[in-house]
Amino acid sequence: MRVDVPVEPVGVLGEAWRECVGTGRAELALRADYLESLAFVQEAIGFRHVRGHGLFSDGMGVYREYDGATGRAVRHSFTYVDRVVEGWLSRGIRPFLELGFMPSDLASGDQTVFWWRGNVTPPRSYIEWGELVSATVRHLVDRYGLDEVRRWPIEVWNEPNLDIFWRDADQDEYHRLYEVTARAVKDVDAELQVGGPSLAPGGDEWWEPFAEFVTAKDVPIDFVSRHAYTSGPAQPVPFGVYQTLRPPSSLLEQFAAPRWHLHGTALADLPVHITEFNSSYRPDNPIHDTAYNAAYLAPVLAGGGELVDSFSYWTFCDIFEEVGVPTSFFHGGFGLVTHGGIAKPTFHLYAFMARCGRHVLARGDDHLVTRDDDGRVAILAWQPVGGSDDGPYGSAPERHRIGLDVPVGGQLPVTVVRRRVDEERGNAWTLWRELGAPRHPSRRRLELLREASQPGVEHFSLAPGPGGRVTLDLTLARHEVTLVELLPAGMETGVAGVDGAAIIDDG
Amino acid sequence: MRVDVPVEPVGVLGEAWRECVGTGRAELALRADYLESLAFVQEAIGFRHVRGHGLFSDGMGVYREYDGATGRAVRHSFTYVDRVVEGWLSRGIRPFLELGFMPSDLASGDQTVFWWRGNVTPPRSYIEWGELVSATVRHLVDRYGLDEVRRWPIEVWNEPNLDIFWRDADQDEYHRLYEVTARAVKDVDAELQVGGPSLAPGGDEWWEPFAEFVTAKDVPIDFVSRHAYTSGPAQPVPFGVYQTLRPPSSLLEQFAAPRWHLHGTALADLPVHITEFNSSYRPDNPIHDTAYNAAYLAPVLAGGGELVDSFSYWTFCDIFEEVGVPTSFFHGGFGLVTHGGIAKPTFHLYAFMARCGRHVLARGDDHLVTRDDDGRVAILAWQPVGGSDDGPYGSAPERHRIGLDVPVGGQLPVTVVRRRVDEERGNAWTLWRELGAPRHPSRRRLELLREASQPGVEHFSLAPGPGGRVTLDLTLARHEVTLVELLPAGMETGVAGVDGAAIIDDG
Amino acid sequence: MRVDVPVEPVGVLGEAWRECVGTGRAELALRADYLESLAFVQEAIGFRHVRGHGLFSDGMGVYREYDGATGRAVRHSFTYVDRVVEGWLSRGIRPFLELGFMPSDLASGDQTVFWWRGNVTPPRSYIEWGELVSATVRHLVDRYGLDEVRRWPIEVWNEPNLDIFWRDADQDEYHRLYEVTARAVKDVDAELQVGGPSLAPGGDEWWEPFAEFVTAKDVPIDFVSRHAYTSGPAQPVPFGVYQTLRPPSSLLEQFAAPRWHLHGTALADLPVHITEFNSSYRPDNPIHDTAYNAAYLAPVLAGGGELVDSFSYWTFCDIFEEVGVPTSFFHGGFGLVTHGGIAKPTFHLYAFMARCGRHVLARGDDHLVTRDDDGRVAILAWQPVGGSDDGPYGSAPERHRIGLDVPVGGQLPVTVVRRRVDEERGNAWTLWRELGAPRHPSRRRLELLREASQPGVEHFSLAPGPGGRVTLDLTLARHEVTLVELLPAGMETGVAGVDGAAIIDDG
Amino acid sequence: MRVDVPVEPVGVLGEAWRECVGTGRAELALRADYLESLAFVQEAIGFRHVRGHGLFSDGMGVYREYDGATGRAVRHSFTYVDRVVEGWLSRGIRPFLELGFMPSDLASGDQTVFWWRGNVTPPRSYIEWGELVSATVRHLVDRYGLDEVRRWPIEVWNEPNLDIFWRDADQDEYHRLYEVTARAVKDVDAELQVGGPSLAPGGDEWWEPFAEFVTAKDVPIDFVSRHAYTSGPAQPVPFGVYQTLRPPSSLLEQFAAPRWHLHGTALADLPVHITEFNSSYRPDNPIHDTAYNAAYLAPVLAGGGELVDSFSYWTFCDIFEEVGVPTSFFHGGFGLVTHGGIAKPTFHLYAFMARCGRHVLARGDDHLVTRDDDGRVAILAWQPVGGSDDGPYGSAPERHRIGLDVPVGGQLPVTVVRRRVDEERGNAWTLWRELGAPRHPSRRRLELLREASQPGVEHFSLAPGPGGRVTLDLTLARHEVTLVELLPAGMETGVAGVDGAAIIDDG
Repeated sequence: MRVDVPVEPVGVLGEAWRECVGTGRAELALRADYLESLAFVQEAIGFRHVRGHGLFSDGMGVYREYDGATGRAVRHSFTYVDRVVEGWLSRGIRPFLELGFMPSDLASGDQTVFWWRGNVTPPRSYIEWGELVSATVRHLVDRYGLDEVRRWPIEVWNEPNLDIFWRDADQDEYHRLYEVTARAVKDVDAELQVGGPSLAPGGDEWWEPFAEFVTAKDVPIDFVSRHAYTSGPAQPVPFGVYQTLRPPSSLLEQFAAPRWHLHGTALADLPVHITEFNSSYRPDNPIHDTAYNAAYLAPVLAGGGELVDSFSYWTFCDIFEEVGVPTSFFHGGFGLVTHGGIAKPTFHLYAFMARCGRHVLARGDDHLVTRDDDGRVAILAWQPVGGSDDGPYGSAPERHRIGLDVPVGGQLPVTVVRRRVDEERGNAWTLWRELGAPRHPSRRRLELLREASQPGVEHFSLAPGPGGRVTLDLTLARHEVTLVELLPAGMETGVAGVDGAAIIDDG
Repeated sequence: MRVDVPVEPVGVLGEAWRECVGTGRAELALRADYLESLAFVQEAIGFRHVRGHGLFSDGMGVYREYDGATGRAVRHSFTYVDRVVEGWLSRGIRPFLELGFMPSDLASGDQTVFWWRGNVTPPRSYIEWGELVSATVRHLVDRYGLDEVRRWPIEVWNEPNLDIFWRDADQDEYHRLYEVTARAVKDVDAELQVGGPSLAPGGDEWWEPFAEFVTAKDVPIDFVSRHAYTSGPAQPVPFGVYQTLRPPSSLLEQFAAPRWHLHGTALADLPVHITEFNSSYRPDNPIHDTAYNAAYLAPVLAGGGELVDSFSYWTFCDIFEEVGVPTSFFHGGFGLVTHGGIAKPTFHLYAFMARCGRHVLARGDDHLVTRDDDGRVAILAWQPVGGSDDGPYGSAPERHRIGLDVPVGGQLPVTVVRRRVDEERGNAWTLWRELGAPRHPSRRRLELLREASQPGVEHFSLAPGPGGRVTLDLTLARHEVTLVELLPAGMETGVAGVDGAAIIDDG
Repeated sequence: MRVDVPVEPVGVLGEAWRECVGTGRAELALRADYLESLAFVQEAIGFRHVRGHGLFSDGMGVYREYDGATGRAVRHSFTYVDRVVEGWLSRGIRPFLELGFMPSDLASGDQTVFWWRGNVTPPRSYIEWGELVSATVRHLVDRYGLDEVRRWPIEVWNEPNLDIFWRDADQDEYHRLYEVTARAVKDVDAELQVGGPSLAPGGDEWWEPFAEFVTAKDVPIDFVSRHAYTSGPAQPVPFGVYQTLRPPSSLLEQFAAPRWHLHGTALADLPVHITEFNSSYRPDNPIHDTAYNAAYLAPVLAGGGELVDSFSYWTFCDIFEEVGVPTSFFHGGFGLVTHGGIAKPTFHLYAFMARCGRHVLARGDDHLVTRDDDGRVAILAWQPVGGSDDGPYGSAPERHRIGLDVPVGGQLPVTVVRRRVDEERGNAWTLWRELGAPRHPSRRRLELLREASQPGVEHFSLAPGPGGRVTLDLTLARHEVTLVELLPAGMETGVAGVDGAAIIDDG
Repeated sequence: MRVDVPVEPVGVLGEAWRECVGTGRAELALRADYLESLAFVQEAIGFRHVRGHGLFSDGMGVYREYDGATGRAVRHSFTYVDRVVEGWLSRGIRPFLELGFMPSDLASGDQTVFWWRGNVTPPRSYIEWGELVSATVRHLVDRYGLDEVRRWPIEVWNEPNLDIFWRDADQDEYHRLYEVTARAVKDVDAELQVGGPSLAPGGDEWWEPFAEFVTAKDVPIDFVSRHAYTSGPAQPVPFGVYQTLRPPSSLLEQFAAPRWHLHGTALADLPVHITEFNSSYRPDNPIHDTAYNAAYLAPVLAGGGELVDSFSYWTFCDIFEEVGVPTSFFHGGFGLVTHGGIAKPTFHLYAFMARCGRHVLARGDDHLVTRDDDGRVAILAWQPVGGSDDGPYGSAPERHRIGLDVPVGGQLPVTVVRRRVDEERGNAWTLWRELGAPRHPSRRRLELLREASQPGVEHFSLAPGPGGRVTLDLTLARHEVTLVELLPAGMETGVAGVDGAAIIDDG
């Protein structure tokens, strides 16, 4: 059976999928390898915003007490904030600011999260917190201009519904923090965008009280935010974990949750940002390194934009230290690219999305057909995979077939270029395991891994049938994600191409 | 039938194949795209020297007459010579200097060669020619140091046995030029290396008189040089030609010619440099763009070092203007890379050679098996092709099979990485034709072409049989050149790799 | 006597001075050193357009005859045009297209100009010329987009009133060329901008007939263009010339000429572009290398924008071959920078202009006072010099004094930063002569020259007097051009700066 | 009175002054700004080795406990070590390894030093410490090769004689650490260089027992190391300190201390490395930002090589966090360059040293005269300053005069190029204070600061007197450090330079 792709578009492929991407904590953006990886990712994908933790954590050196002439005083210092922001801006990506965690000197307690010890307690003084927020935002506006900073959403804290991220997961305390923060931001400029509550999965009971609180107290709010993950509890192995996975549809359900829960409230029509998502929420689950992860997320990228204004892959690279410094080249990190900037399969899924066209011609469980204004057709296709219920890793069928009947708008031959990522192609992880899983690969092996990370490429010419349509019968390998482009053959020359058979004269 | 590869090396793979590479005329080395292509080629291949025409041609501005206080005077100017040489040196490649052609103001006639009009007549004054040579060499020694310049072979003129390159192909006149030049060079420093006579194919009758001349007159000579091509006369098409091709063994026979002809003379033991070679001698024959060219030259690269001290592929990139500015992206240029630096199949042949090991374990009509000191085995394999006698382009069998039984030195699994270049893989030319042969591809199409130019990559693990050997049954596609590396799996970690099947916990 | 600078602006400093800059012929834009110099110039100055000769000359390979199936045929090839244009665009500068000279194969004669032999004869077929023009413009529009190309003025030919640039300086023939060209351009798109007649000084008698012609025949015209130089006939020395110079006011008079001569015609209100200007029109007059040239041109840059829409310095770098390849590092080239990218004094004049503010507070014979929206005041000052009438080079007074009373808008101290360029400071040419005028300076000496090319920098604090004004008494050295910036001291810190005297504790 | 500089050298200027330079803790070498600053410093100065703390501190993630199959296990991970080392090597600088501090999991206590919490307690297991050392060294040898790593001195710990750096400053415990470490290193390879005890000033009583210990137990030792600083106790101000300074001769006395104290021991003839030195030992003392610091250290750089094998300036850049993240652009950091890579005066002192010649012709209290093999004379001169005893900052005389009579080897004119750094010239710090000491300067102000950081340049020609000597009367400004080069004028051209006065023809 073949899908009959219509000539007329059924919709527009928006930008929600690349509106934002996640990053390890702010100060990692000082690193050379981080910036190189960011440039690499931006070249191929072009995310609009970047969001991560730790803007106010001690490593950024922002909130600084000292002994002044008249006793204790505070200096707000932006030495590193400026470098971090400039590192992002100069690579073509804007901050999606997350305000947190708590500077030690401003904290009311010493509870921390992560290896790098982000303090997760409320401020000991909300006045000083408000001053910190407004000083920071004001500095950014002074330095980068109001027009620019108005394009940076500002999110208040991270996952306050989890007690590891916010002491006692105290919702009232979060409301207080939200109010002080939102008002401090708006005091700088009323058009800056502020939002929250950055809920982790499992916190949907927070929506209603949050909506009531901001409505009742008329607290500013420009967007709401939530996270989405589908992994179950971690089963530890040395320097890693295995987890169960729910099906990818669960991600889309989580994307839909804020609107569903806010229905009927004053926040019902606000933009919704999924400020983190991935399969597993663990930075040491090998799933992130696999082709499976790409196939698993393909329907999410293809369809998520129908549900939310952005959904932010957590994270763009493996430079990330929440459970400590990685001890191995591949280590299950979140990154689209490894340390050293080698693309993982999910990177290619994003790069394929970036080559899709503006107009959606067809969507399905295993495909997304798009067209550009210039007539180029781009098809993203994947083998559907369903998480733990479908059995262990590798139990998906060896082959998946997709038939498409595609309008190409004329009788001229089209050039078909296909790129393939699966367990073998575009898959440095597989080669790495064949090489014996070297924790610190030599320079020479890194070159091999880089070569192996490039998608397989196939290309051929196809003559349209009557009606200006071509038939594509695609066979995908296990866990494959594939991009097929149909290009009208150039009419540029007006002269014949080379006559292949004649190249060697027969004398 | 399988080739039984021995454990003990049968020889060493020398550096003759990368000792030198050809270039378009000297002043093209001022160009940005030229230098980018050179850097790209050097990164992958690492040639030692570069040789091209036109050092003294008018575009380089070296020999400059002017009206001095006491009448006509000459200034030797190295404004461009220095830039050209520094462009080469800074990309890790040394000049193989070719002294020629004649500055117009020093020429005895106005006969020129090429679109860019290189003057090919003898000097009107051998005294002034000698001064030009010694001023140039002295300047180079002053600027780059004697140790450095002693490593630059200096060749006298180009193909004087053809009347298009040397007026009347006058051998006596060439002898005179050679003598004056060689003595001028040696007057600067006796250890500088000078040689000739840079014969084009068909000029082997020059060897004996040349040897007699330099011997009789005790003219300095440090090496001899010849060119080698296998194409027949050109059958023109618009902006291109088709030619017949002799088999690749003809190239090896030409390599052997100088030693054969000089046997018994005083020059018998001098180093022999093939300062140009290729299939076709035309810069507009599409053969150069094909996988066929790579397969055709593979046995030459694999075996040429047994016969000569260097053989220099003519040329490293398509930036070349002998028949005018190219009017199309692919145009049958000599280059290993196109304008814009996209690799052609023959580029990959060279890059594969650069990954071969130091020790030769086996050679054959379709393979070269090598090993590095660290145990890595690298196999270059190709489908043998034979030129016009074997029929028109594309008449080679669809498949070529090679069986090898290879010692890998132990019982540990080896990682096999194979890279493939054929009519489809690693072949931007094929995609370009599918795209309609666009003469000026858009930026977007150049990206596609670049992707398509990368070799196909395959990789898997292989367990050795008893005796520490693995069996490789390679199937090559039409015109394929392939590199197979066998790497001992790393023992780096001491910890198990990831257990694939366990990645998704079953809950 | 001091100039009392008013608080209120007297005008706006437009962009005419940087609207365009000249270049050596088009194909030089392929060179790496050219592109590096262009990037350097653009970083400091930021010209908007670049204009040079030779787009259609043989070296660009555009117009190509060949034997087609049915006889003689022509291919228009843009292999190099695209590279040249992309080299410009990617360095942030747009083409100001000059259409010329004549491809040899399309020429009606063999008269050429320059060492590089630009053919200056009319086309043998105006139909084919028109096809060449429209094919070229159409190609550019296809490749770069209509919005982009509409921003590229298109000028027809160069200096047709000189018989060295246009056979017999035949005005009727030029009119014919202009008409065919302008119509061909507009046939591609009516909003493309086309103009001429690109007159050399001395051709003002052409204006009236030109205006009559285009008016009578309703030929499209969007702008008019002229050139301006002030040097007299060349007195040759080896590889150079000396010339007389008229005063700089002569340049401004030439700028005013087109409007003066077109007064009352239908072209009276068209934009006027001075598509070339400099002191000397010779590429081998040492005047271009001097501080004198900068002081001489300072009033022209400061005031030229009052008269015309652009005036284009001929040329941005010394990479230029009209009288052959330069034989010496400094050689009197037009460039703002030397071969190797070392700034000449006139470069600094332009860089100083680029630091001037938007609002003009005062203008004078030796100064231009400007202010930015943020309060920064920038003063360009120079010693007036007057050309040959004022005596030989070096006869200007040793010192020139300027007094200014400048409003700084408050009582806070201002930081004064002054940069100086004169015979010693910012003057690699002087050091080069002290070094013995080495024609091919070593790398080490180039470093010294580069250091010496940087302006002298002086800085200090100044407290405003009552009324928020500061008094500046500037003493300029011979041929000095100077930039003084007055910056309000930052209020950023709120904490005291370092107490200098206390740095070393006295124990 | 003039110094009569002799023609014959009195010695050789060794490389001790640039043999090593200090750095902030190892993981800072991951940062992009750090690596840019390192490249900038290496381009101008070319240090041979770099030494800093924290190789084994938690941020580097080296020592990693985990739950293995059979209980607690340890993994040694070099993910960051490799990146750090490669960052150094690729910028042309080798590690001078300092082994320390203690990984938390291997520590016997929780005492830490610095804002970044380096653990300074002995290992809880010397066996595991030895394994950590040998695993690390073995990994480095595997990855970088034995020849390379043999060139990296390995120092055991840092300043164990201070109880802030080593618990209780326990010498016996240090001896135990030294022995275990040195043997672990030598077990990897006997030719690796190991040494200690890295004493802080004030610890000279450790020398004798240390020598006795290693001699008695035959512990390997290849070099000894000590630190040198001349500042007194810190008087705090907000985010900074003021301190007294002893005269610079005190630094040279400290350099001499190890040899003096080891006289007569078995260690008497070992190489001595001063692995840290500076004026103040505080990273927040403004002295480091001043021209004073350069003048103060000039005699130390000029003379230190007579006393020791290396002396390592602490540190090459301001990226340094021992007292927290700097809150201001200039903040008294150790760096030769600021955040953002702007040169401080002491940077120029080093850059001047790098331009001195190989042969020392004369030394004095305020000068060092050198000559290269090619005849170039380079003179480093400075105003002598003496620390606190000479009064507060700024109390040095306004002028310092030096007269030198210098042999230049002939009668040809010499070109004199002088570069000046003082309170105004080459001094961004002064401009920064004039600008109001902005803590976070805008991009525009950073450009001004960068311009102001470049030394003043003066140049002129000088004709030698009879005897081939020139007389230089140098007047130095307060705190000036100056470099004067005398270059023989080039004889390159054989043609006259430009005749200045003739440039403008008088018609």
